[in-house]
Amino acid sequence: MSCVRRFAAAAFLFVLVALLAGGSAWGQDLESLTTASREQLDVVKVLIAQRDAWNRGDINGFIQAYKDAPDTLMVTHQISHGFAELAESYRHDYPNHAAMGTLSFSGIEARALDAKFAIVLGNYHLERAKKEGGNAEGVFTMVLEKTAQGWKIILDHTT
Amino acid sequence: MSCVRRFAAAAFLFVLVALLAGGSAWGQDLESLTTASREQLDVVKVLIAQRDAWNRGDINGFIQAYKDAPDTLMVTHQISHGFAELAESYRHDYPNHAAMGTLSFSGIEARALDAKFAIVLGNYHLERAKKEGGNAEGVFTMVLEKTAQGWKIILDHTT
Repeated sequence: MSCVRRFAAAAFLFVLVALLAGGSAWGQDLESLTTASREQLDVVKVLIAQRDAWNRGDINGFIQAYKDAPDTLMVTHQISHGFAELAESYRHDYPNHAAMGTLSFSGIEARALDAKFAIVLGNYHLERAKKEGGNAEGVFTMVLEKTAQGWKIILDHTT
Repeated sequence: MSCVRRFAAAAFLFVLVALLAGGSAWGQDLESLTTASREQLDVVKVLIAQRDAWNRGDINGFIQAYKDAPDTLMVTHQISHGFAELAESYRHDYPNHAAMGTLSFSGIEARALDAKFAIVLGNYHLERAKKEGGNAEGVFTMVLEKTAQGWKIILDHTT
């Protein structure tokens, strides 16, 4: 199959992938995602692993979802260029389990652009003690790349 | 060339593409971008055309930078799903030239993911009369796709 035809076949899959809220009223099991493509499921699994690492206080496990490359980008209240800067920023902002709180995702939409790249839109919600900064929530968009180590985030814009 | 080799050859181009500030102290000409790839230049040209359309009060011209597809996404203070919703949102928020003000971009970084997709990071600055809502500025990340109609924005996250 030519590249063009492979692009055409793989692109524009776009399914409202169910929620990752994990126990909230919004919750829905991954098993129910019968209309999602293989790429979409694999991408959503990255987010599930990320959430689970976060919720056991494992910031290094959480960071592993990002591609270890100098051109990985994270945009939050600041812009982090490269995996090293991004990792340092997370470790600085979330030094321990209490500072991390409990993370949940909702409204996740995953779209495979082609065999190698995918985009994700979603909402996050952070439950956290007031003295640790309190609750937080917002929207994120991500670009993921299929690498030899699996799907990895290469761009994360969280607001 | 196989798809895999084509991906590998095209991916990871990442050059700090110069500013689009257009007349501000940050200004730098497009002509100076000698290290940028063809894809990066083409993507930056989309932003220049967008800025120029905006600054002549041509909201429809501005909107043409987005792909006319139901899965085009724009995330600002709200989430617009699809070109039609996005276009309506822009026309509602910016009904005339005065409401649009004068737009400039800076800190643009463009990265070609492969022959068909690219990501862009940048800052925008809007100069506008106080009674029209005043100045505004922020960060945006975008994903663009090379379509039969040229490079088009398929995801815009502006904060």
